[in-house]
Amino acid sequence: MKIAILFGGSSYEHEISIVSAITLKKSLKRNEPLFIFVDSAREFYLIEPEKMKSKTFSSGEYKKAKKLSLERGGFSMAGGLLGGRKPLEFDCLLNLIHGRDGEDGKIAGMMEFFRIPFIGPRLEASVMSYSKLNTKLLAQALGISVLEYELLRKEGPRKLSRLEYPVIVKPVHLGSSIGVSIVREASQLDYALDVAFEFDDLVIVEPFVEGIREYNLAGCKTSAWELSLIEEPQKEEFLDFDKKYMDFSRDTRVQEAVIDAPLRERLETAFKNIYDPLFLGSLIRCDFFVVEEKVYLNEINPIPGSMAHYLFDDFEGIIERLAKNLPKEKSIPVDYRYIHSIQSAKGKA
Amino acid sequence: MKIAILFGGSSYEHEISIVSAITLKKSLKRNEPLFIFVDSAREFYLIEPEKMKSKTFSSGEYKKAKKLSLERGGFSMAGGLLGGRKPLEFDCLLNLIHGRDGEDGKIAGMMEFFRIPFIGPRLEASVMSYSKLNTKLLAQALGISVLEYELLRKEGPRKLSRLEYPVIVKPVHLGSSIGVSIVREASQLDYALDVAFEFDDLVIVEPFVEGIREYNLAGCKTSAWELSLIEEPQKEEFLDFDKKYMDFSRDTRVQEAVIDAPLRERLETAFKNIYDPLFLGSLIRCDFFVVEEKVYLNEINPIPGSMAHYLFDDFEGIIERLAKNLPKEKSIPVDYRYIHSIQSAKGKA
Repeated sequence: MKIAILFGGSSYEHEISIVSAITLKKSLKRNEPLFIFVDSAREFYLIEPEKMKSKTFSSGEYKKAKKLSLERGGFSMAGGLLGGRKPLEFDCLLNLIHGRDGEDGKIAGMMEFFRIPFIGPRLEASVMSYSKLNTKLLAQALGISVLEYELLRKEGPRKLSRLEYPVIVKPVHLGSSIGVSIVREASQLDYALDVAFEFDDLVIVEPFVEGIREYNLAGCKTSAWELSLIEEPQKEEFLDFDKKYMDFSRDTRVQEAVIDAPLRERLETAFKNIYDPLFLGSLIRCDFFVVEEKVYLNEINPIPGSMAHYLFDDFEGIIERLAKNLPKEKSIPVDYRYIHSIQSAKGKA
Repeated sequence: MKIAILFGGSSYEHEISIVSAITLKKSLKRNEPLFIFVDSAREFYLIEPEKMKSKTFSSGEYKKAKKLSLERGGFSMAGGLLGGRKPLEFDCLLNLIHGRDGEDGKIAGMMEFFRIPFIGPRLEASVMSYSKLNTKLLAQALGISVLEYELLRKEGPRKLSRLEYPVIVKPVHLGSSIGVSIVREASQLDYALDVAFEFDDLVIVEPFVEGIREYNLAGCKTSAWELSLIEEPQKEEFLDFDKKYMDFSRDTRVQEAVIDAPLRERLETAFKNIYDPLFLGSLIRCDFFVVEEKVYLNEINPIPGSMAHYLFDDFEGIIERLAKNLPKEKSIPVDYRYIHSIQSAKGKA
């Protein structure tokens, strides 16, 4: 199976996506994937596998690579017969653009419109997970608990009405801890909001619970459920962009969290409830909090760093099976029945 | 100002969109818009203004028109210098694709990705209004009342747990009353669900309130608020596809609803609350119910039929002002700071 990895994008996580793609190259050895880079101007380039090094991108050398055009059914490039274009051959695209473009639904929308098979969240799944507010609303609709929250707007008043300190302040639409701060007392709120509003006009504030237990679970549904081991991430991890960045390049398996069977069951049930049917076609990671044995959804990562490959035993097999079990678009017949009936009604008049 | 109207699409409302575009041609006389047709295979065609008749599409004659390609900044067509392509010149695109493709966020995502200025709901606004469930969640988050509801899944149990008859059964993701039924007693539910599940895997059920007062308000924010008159639609209208279809082609102004100033104020406040900032860049119509003077959001129509032009005095002026007041995409610098810092750290090691 030929997989094409799409990475880069016009996003604060552009560099993270590059690191993610370089890391994934090692996890998809059997398939020798193609690499399609989206630069910050949103041009598409076909990167040769041996050029998949960070320097190719930071030096601008990628601009010498073959340019691709997006069209119905796939991508094309120069070099076809009679000076024409030729198609790039692959079976399935893997959307590995983190943040804007990749996770906000743009890539999903384009792939669906141009009928290109792809692994990644579909349009609605993207929009519901890209916004931390929409994630809360979705979880509530599904009966899954979330931490309480307050929303602040850039032009609105800068004070909390219900929550008590300490709190955590997050831009609504970003991943990877960008613009996130812990605020321990009211006097620190203003600065944290300055930082967060640099990235988004809408900010979400949640209680910051010291020493809260956090569990990450990744997976997808192919012909059956394929769930990862459950990881208990290191506590400081979720606040530091540099650490997160390093994390995206990790290639060793993690230690499985020590939890009892009923909690594992509750985490897996919550995961399946979120995933099916909205996230079909994607491999996602859900981050949960557990307080007094109650499970809370923290966030949905619909394109986790390097696809959270380190959480799986048979990552490459899962990707292959997922590519063969993508949701099908509903076929809508267009038969001009109404226009014909109006035309014939007019003809009789 | 040159406006390009994008219409058609792979949607149950494909024909409605054609009628909508033909109708809009008369309302944008001053601008002599361009017409870009998306056929059901999702190819783009430039339709000459004199060919903007329903027969052009129902007969397949549109296939003789110039084919367009989507690319960064706009569309191009054959006929450039030295056998190359030339750009289609316009200032702003108007997304008039109703239903799938247009209202679900695909067109929005593509226009944002390729940086083409457009009038229409942005990606997140599309997804929040295309789904009747997401609309409820959004309204609740904004503190706007909605009718109570139950959700039914295609593969789930077929009975109501809380609502009493009569109810109205609707596919979650469709507009224009397609697949909608009124169900007066339990024995009719099964058939109504058969119909609705033809179109969607998720169905929403609401109480059907006989003689409920319904008010429609359209508008947008340019440099200031531009709100339409308030219409009280005819009751039978919202259930019949054929009537709705005819409605999309109407070109006479409607009678203004007779309501008192406080109710008008409440409707306008709810509209502004929904619109700003999520729907900036679009002209939407909100349909409200009023029960005992309390305002309920029924649905958001982010691309109303023929843009609800019949609700405005100066429709063409509004479209021109809207085109000049589109939301700007945030510019994200990509400077390879992290990759550089890692490379230099490695160099030192």
